[in-house]
Amino acid sequence: MQSYVTPAHVREACREQRHVGPTPGFCPGHAQANVVILPKEHAWDFLLLCQRNPTPLPLLEVYEPGDPVSRTMAPGSDIRTDCPRYIVQQSGETREATDISDLWRDDLVTFLLGCSFTFEAGLIEAGVPVRHMEESCNVPMYRTNVPLDPAGIFSGPMVVSMRPVPSGLVPAAVMATARFPAVHGAPVWVGNPQGLGIADVNTPDFGDSVTIREGELPVFWACGVSGLSAVQTAGVDFAVTHAPGHMLVLDVKDSELGA
Amino acid sequence: MQSYVTPAHVREACREQRHVGPTPGFCPGHAQANVVILPKEHAWDFLLLCQRNPTPLPLLEVYEPGDPVSRTMAPGSDIRTDCPRYIVQQSGETREATDISDLWRDDLVTFLLGCSFTFEAGLIEAGVPVRHMEESCNVPMYRTNVPLDPAGIFSGPMVVSMRPVPSGLVPAAVMATARFPAVHGAPVWVGNPQGLGIADVNTPDFGDSVTIREGELPVFWACGVSGLSAVQTAGVDFAVTHAPGHMLVLDVKDSELGA
Repeated sequence: MQSYVTPAHVREACREQRHVGPTPGFCPGHAQANVVILPKEHAWDFLLLCQRNPTPLPLLEVYEPGDPVSRTMAPGSDIRTDCPRYIVQQSGETREATDISDLWRDDLVTFLLGCSFTFEAGLIEAGVPVRHMEESCNVPMYRTNVPLDPAGIFSGPMVVSMRPVPSGLVPAAVMATARFPAVHGAPVWVGNPQGLGIADVNTPDFGDSVTIREGELPVFWACGVSGLSAVQTAGVDFAVTHAPGHMLVLDVKDSELGA
Repeated sequence: MQSYVTPAHVREACREQRHVGPTPGFCPGHAQANVVILPKEHAWDFLLLCQRNPTPLPLLEVYEPGDPVSRTMAPGSDIRTDCPRYIVQQSGETREATDISDLWRDDLVTFLLGCSFTFEAGLIEAGVPVRHMEESCNVPMYRTNVPLDPAGIFSGPMVVSMRPVPSGLVPAAVMATARFPAVHGAPVWVGNPQGLGIADVNTPDFGDSVTIREGELPVFWACGVSGLSAVQTAGVDFAVTHAPGHMLVLDVKDSELGA
């Protein structure tokens, strides 16, 4: 994992395509965001989806239509270039991209959603291990059997991220993350992955598998990828999201998002 | 379970030996206390034990030597008669009693320690089931492999109480109890009873066994019985405690003990 001094440096590296990988652990102390970009005609439904599902989809910023520049969370950043990797959904096909400048349109609305990477510094401070950082990979994410409260054309399952936590540190993990409701807050589920509809915790739907050691329980937090999944399922004609784990690094500090 | 209108009514029923059973669920909204009564010569060591182990042994009140009357937590109550059941340790023998008036001495110091029954109303409010109340029995308690930080003649294992919690409600159970540090606060352990040195979760060392349903995890909170256990192990010549689950019902309200 490379280290960049400031969020602006990370975004510059993304813009120049020097960095195209996942972002967990980048710029400790600074928040990161899930990104959803939709034509204005679908923006109302998606905004309503966020309003109805604030735990998986905590809204941080909504851009003006056609404006690719953040005003509050990462002022001056350009959403067309500043994520390391995107998923483009267009005319029924899905592909990855590292720059979406040539796809930009005047009717596109950008949504930034809180990301659980924000509270990982709090977990580490509380003595809770963050396994995907230890193993230098992406956090494992899973579709669940818990449906989002639907809105217009958008529906689908809640997606969760998972961190293995020793039994004696589960309370600390809950308390360290509960104070960050803007980035998913406390876990939604502890242990028993089958109860969430996860058949095999070692085979995540997104991200990478991580080691669960003896005496540890898988702990699940709501994940912004729920929004990506809803957008994919809706089959809209055009949409762009970040690739899971490949977030927009923000100027806003984790501490500013905490209660 | 009988219901009494006020804590004073419960204590009167204990005093007249109309109530000699456990007290979970009595006088909702009012706190209950673990009781330890020791000769003054051992009181320093026990006070230090509480200071060093505030999670299992959260001190609520220490009486003046020889004074059987509470000044702050249950004003006017008489510790010699107002618990439903006591355990008397005397000259190497242990027996139960429902009144210790005839054993009272001028050098006895009474300690009241917070009890997890206080936060059970908070659990129920948060939608978390309290199984031993549903099953009208005493809470299950276990000796663990976690040693207390010893003080003078007192040492021994931490004792924990257990409540089964559905995986999706574990975070709520942590958050509902974390705000009550004066009554053990957040759980100390989730799942994996073997990791706490509990061989069989269905065979508690104190209290009653309760049903753990599919999809539920055993969640463990530090328990004031840790103090009773330390007193028994120390083999002091004279000591009285309440019998596990048979608490002193206090006038102080649960809400007054919350953060």
